Amino acid sequence: MARLVRAALMRGGTSKGVVFRAADLPPAGAARDAVIVAALGPDSTGLAIDGVGGGVTSTLKAAVVAPPSKPGFAADYHFAQVSRGGGIDWRSSCANFASAAALVAADDGMALREADGSAVVRLWASGAGEALSVTLPATDAPPVAIAGVRGEAPPLRVEFELGGHALLPTGRPEEEGLRLGDRPLRATIVDVAGNPQVLVRAVEGGLRGDEAAEEATAALVWEAVDALLDEAAGRVGLKARPSGMRLLWLSARRDHCLAGGGAVAAAECDLLSRVSAGSRVHHAHTGTGALALACAAAVPGTVAHELVRGGGGGGCGGGGEAGAELRIAHPQGVMRVHASVGRDADGRHVAHSAGMVRTARYLMVGEVVV
Amino acid sequence: MARLVRAALMRGGTSKGVVFRAADLPPAGAARDAVIVAALGPDSTGLAIDGVGGGVTSTLKAAVVAPPSKPGFAADYHFAQVSRGGGIDWRSSCANFASAAALVAADDGMALREADGSAVVRLWASGAGEALSVTLPATDAPPVAIAGVRGEAPPLRVEFELGGHALLPTGRPEEEGLRLGDRPLRATIVDVAGNPQVLVRAVEGGLRGDEAAEEATAALVWEAVDALLDEAAGRVGLKARPSGMRLLWLSARRDHCLAGGGAVAAAECDLLSRVSAGSRVHHAHTGTGALALACAAAVPGTVAHELVRGGGGGGCGGGGEAGAELRIAHPQGVMRVHASVGRDADGRHVAHSAGMVRTARYLMVGEVVV
Repeated sequence: MARLVRAALMRGGTSKGVVFRAADLPPAGAARDAVIVAALGPDSTGLAIDGVGGGVTSTLKAAVVAPPSKPGFAADYHFAQVSRGGGIDWRSSCANFASAAALVAADDGMALREADGSAVVRLWASGAGEALSVTLPATDAPPVAIAGVRGEAPPLRVEFELGGHALLPTGRPEEEGLRLGDRPLRATIVDVAGNPQVLVRAVEGGLRGDEAAEEATAALVWEAVDALLDEAAGRVGLKARPSGMRLLWLSARRDHCLAGGGAVAAAECDLLSRVSAGSRVHHAHTGTGALALACAAAVPGTVAHELVRGGGGGGCGGGGEAGAELRIAHPQGVMRVHASVGRDADGRHVAHSAGMVRTARYLMVGEVVV
Repeated sequence: MARLVRAALMRGGTSKGVVFRAADLPPAGAARDAVIVAALGPDSTGLAIDGVGGGVTSTLKAAVVAPPSKPGFAADYHFAQVSRGGGIDWRSSCANFASAAALVAADDGMALREADGSAVVRLWASGAGEALSVTLPATDAPPVAIAGVRGEAPPLRVEFELGGHALLPTGRPEEEGLRLGDRPLRATIVDVAGNPQVLVRAVEGGLRGDEAAEEATAALVWEAVDALLDEAAGRVGLKARPSGMRLLWLSARRDHCLAGGGAVAAAECDLLSRVSAGSRVHHAHTGTGALALACAAAVPGTVAHELVRGGGGGGCGGGGEAGAELRIAHPQGVMRVHASVGRDADGRHVAHSAGMVRTARYLMVGEVVV
């Protein structure tokens, strides 16, 4: 018998998925997972024909907004990454989709209204163990565009509280002995709130670096990418690689064209990045990857820092360790991210905070049928 | 300001899209088109990130159910095919998605209840000028599976009333002088209710014929496919090619494996078909293409008839012109279609009716935000 579950189909940044309230779902566990997977309808063809989801990681997302499990937070943000095969991963996070969860929490009265008319939603992302706040503007704030999304919408300031987290989980700005297939390469493993990202130079990783997502997807051997990520996960002590752990192919800034039209001048960005997303290259850029990149660009010796300095970029890497902005050129345009990093008492590089502006909107409200 | 429009996100057969009631939309025209395109959110990346649609023709569909504009019908079925670029085509039809529109019409009280508990919804598909009826089973009917869709659902019998329509718009079972790029090929143009389909032998059209959709998509030069379809449209007197006009690559039945798992034995099908859908090969099979194929297989001299007879198939082609069933192997399994064809007083081959069993379901109900 069909069952109706209240839900909102939403875009958050360059991601799409379903936001539920915890009270509308079975308790966390197999029954809740079954509702979410049935609602999204992942399938091997990548069309999710029998559900409201899509065919790639960016369109197979769900979030459960719940009353806060920790003091000082407005709500819990339980993020679920569903795979094409119907698996569900609650351990990762999604910075893009956090903006959608925050909109729902605010509409449910969980936001703190500020004197200037803006509202702050402080979220506990339980899976990745992250604290973040999303600031919704006052209603008269001008709308903004973000690369990869049509039109404009009110700007949502997404800020991660990184709590002095050590950035280099292996203690090294550059790994030794890693390979992509039979290619040796330099790599940096950078950890932002428990979700390590692997940064390599695009040319060493089999790309030019300015490819469209589909072109880059076709150029790569995905078994080799998986093997590299598995090896990196092992180096940081993870037995199972979380779905949010990605490979980033970086290159120095340059003039280049976008497949969807338009061009990016070298002066408009600090570096170029292409990010893995399952067995393909992400259509735009992951939020978590962008945060990691902004942090890494401020740490001498990392692949990101070298490319930003070498490319003459004016972002974090150029300006040392302050809270400067990094402009990342991805397959659909330029994304701006800022990071505040420093060193702890032992001299280790640590991250204090990082953030970016996203937009989000309700696409459909009502009930999913499962 | 965001606007909420009542809608149902639905799967119909192997298609997905939004079903609206006419009363909830602006009158037909630019304002209605704008609501539909905004709701689906097509974009160049093929993810429809800012809407409820997906990235391919199968997931960029909409239907408007309206009170009947012609006597004898339960409802009008105004079908809209949206393209990635945001265009909208009201002239074509979709046999798969008709099953979803019929479910909505039935739930709105438009169905005729039969004595056995089944219900019949007779629809007028205004764009293509087609009459069809969808029979919903009695509530205790056992559910069925269709190839390309997970699970089971109640069977919906979709039957097109073809009204003695001439099947061969050029008068010939085989065209002369058509080419795909620089390859000459044999082709049949078959017309089912104003939506011509072009049938070729897979090997002459650049395929083996048993490829998975992605493999076939990559193997083809799509400019050449478009040129062939444009030439065929010209031959039947169409100035602009409707989006529902497709190329079908056919091959004789054989044992083969499916990319999603499983295999099809030669004895389980009458022929293999791969269908164009925009600049890719359809993940499963179009309903309209399947109807055309079932009709063509009954007409001597067509590409379909030759392959079915040559392959030893027991379908329409083997059985002459009666209402036999054709079993079409597509990239996700086998689809069964039946057709009733004959000859008119002038000896021309005509179609009386054709149909198939689909399933459909509500994926989400509520309001789209546009």
